[in-house]
Amino acid sequence: MSQGAFEHGRCILPDAHCPMRALSYDNALRFEPHHPEPPAGEGDSLLRVRMAGICSTDQEICRGYMGFRGVLGHEFVATVETSPKPEIVGKRVCGEINVVCGKCDLCMAGLSTHCRNRSVMGILNHGGAFADFARLPASNLHVLPDTVDDDAAVFVEPLAAAFQILKQITLDGRKWVTVLGDGKLGLLVAQVLRNVGAPVRVIGRHAPKLALCEKWSIRARAVDEIAARHDQDVVVDCTGSAAGLELAMAMVRPRGTIVLKSTVAQGKPLNLAPLVIDEVTLLGSRCGPFREAIRALASREVDVLSLVHRRMKLEQGAEAMLLASRPGVTKVLLSVAD
Amino acid sequence: MSQGAFEHGRCILPDAHCPMRALSYDNALRFEPHHPEPPAGEGDSLLRVRMAGICSTDQEICRGYMGFRGVLGHEFVATVETSPKPEIVGKRVCGEINVVCGKCDLCMAGLSTHCRNRSVMGILNHGGAFADFARLPASNLHVLPDTVDDDAAVFVEPLAAAFQILKQITLDGRKWVTVLGDGKLGLLVAQVLRNVGAPVRVIGRHAPKLALCEKWSIRARAVDEIAARHDQDVVVDCTGSAAGLELAMAMVRPRGTIVLKSTVAQGKPLNLAPLVIDEVTLLGSRCGPFREAIRALASREVDVLSLVHRRMKLEQGAEAMLLASRPGVTKVLLSVAD
Repeated sequence: MSQGAFEHGRCILPDAHCPMRALSYDNALRFEPHHPEPPAGEGDSLLRVRMAGICSTDQEICRGYMGFRGVLGHEFVATVETSPKPEIVGKRVCGEINVVCGKCDLCMAGLSTHCRNRSVMGILNHGGAFADFARLPASNLHVLPDTVDDDAAVFVEPLAAAFQILKQITLDGRKWVTVLGDGKLGLLVAQVLRNVGAPVRVIGRHAPKLALCEKWSIRARAVDEIAARHDQDVVVDCTGSAAGLELAMAMVRPRGTIVLKSTVAQGKPLNLAPLVIDEVTLLGSRCGPFREAIRALASREVDVLSLVHRRMKLEQGAEAMLLASRPGVTKVLLSVAD
Repeated sequence: MSQGAFEHGRCILPDAHCPMRALSYDNALRFEPHHPEPPAGEGDSLLRVRMAGICSTDQEICRGYMGFRGVLGHEFVATVETSPKPEIVGKRVCGEINVVCGKCDLCMAGLSTHCRNRSVMGILNHGGAFADFARLPASNLHVLPDTVDDDAAVFVEPLAAAFQILKQITLDGRKWVTVLGDGKLGLLVAQVLRNVGAPVRVIGRHAPKLALCEKWSIRARAVDEIAARHDQDVVVDCTGSAAGLELAMAMVRPRGTIVLKSTVAQGKPLNLAPLVIDEVTLLGSRCGPFREAIRALASREVDVLSLVHRRMKLEQGAEAMLLASRPGVTKVLLSVAD
């Protein structure tokens, strides 16, 4: 790729010749060699993306989730090109993906990740990170320590989502904790719960991923080897499938807790009577605390590098998305900077 | 009806001539003039039913819910005919409907309403109260004070289910509380929440029921007059319909709570992504504390008599079930004792 014609981080070529590459979705996924630069918002920093990660949500978007159109990608590490905070220019950062108003009732109540006027990077009305450049408000950015390299830094966002569970439920005294699903998020959640002393077990379908659990001293079983006995105190559904909740309902004990991490494009017929009969608490869980994720990566208490399946170039984005959708494949990274 | 030929509360006629009347379901609802007496279990008391109430669950059973076959009915007041506890013989009682083992892990953990080996009166492997006689363990029975008459006593079971919500969530500081559904249970729930100071609002479809709320100084609105704005702290779904949860998800605020009271026979396609995105807590809620319900009826702090639509005879049971299923109809009582 050409280095382009930039002044202060902005491309000075006419739009049609703008050298920003991007992987975008608009009823079809496609790599665009000349995508317009992301529009600037007040308080935004311009980010030169270094590396990005493919998340299951990106794949759900390509199945219609959120009706999103635009540049995909919300897991990334980037270098700050320009910023209203001059002290972060040139720094390596990751970024919180909810762009919030700071003024609505939810922002004022401390629930800014739920801002009523939010856009969400690569998911809702805000261009994503599968591109040479992206923009986010300076307040969304976290400067990364040198001890967290680019490969690891891409995991900050999903790891923060795993840490969110600890903000929502107490695990003290919960003896039976199951993570349902051995996908990327499930394997992060399992490590986070194990690290706070929860006796966690992963139920999955993929021998190599279950073997990773064993390497981490986390119990793991194949889903076809277990019987659902309504005996788990906590089940975290990370299956990313509408069927996961049904299995979770069969596994959780009466008055137990299901944490729902899966967002899928399509609903399926669900009979929720078991939730009522068993008085289960079902808890939706989404984005989480970046600082804790960065700390956990810096201290190496969570192993993310074993989750990297392959690094591919941005130009190979469509192929990378296909690869990431295959059973048993963990994290596919997109190297954006050469 | 003949008084039958009883000795010590047992019919001494051959089965075919046994004068126990019953309303039963076995792929069809039917009134049986000569139904066998309920089989005796260890520790059971024999109850002569005085009055019973038709619940939406009875109607769901006739649509296939729980696959139940047998005598329906679980809301009742009865006189104790025989009992291993002689001090309650001749007393007027209501009864908890879960018949439990007292030995399984859940019983031992204090969760006996969730006993793994339970049967449930008129719902699961245990004959119900739409009959001259029923049986329950003596430990399930609550002697009623004279201040709670038969009509009111029939409401102990559903009112206890309403009180269960207070055992599961804290309403302190929750400014926006909606009860979704103006059916029998919704109108009990609204009163219970109002009585603990919650600023409750009922959303329903039936003008006469909403007028009842106004009479009780509870705010009420027709469902087609409101806009769902994701702004309610708590939504209690008492619609008894699979569609209720979708509306509840549109009404509840991010990080708010939905209490799910509806059990329906049929699931419907549901996209639960909003639960995850909004990090909502969905809480199943079932049977509740009888003592609190009896106290509330004795003190008249909950008005149940306004909820009685009509009293009919047990022989009219099929007709009564049909009446109870009509929109706008509240509680239909079955007078069992003449």
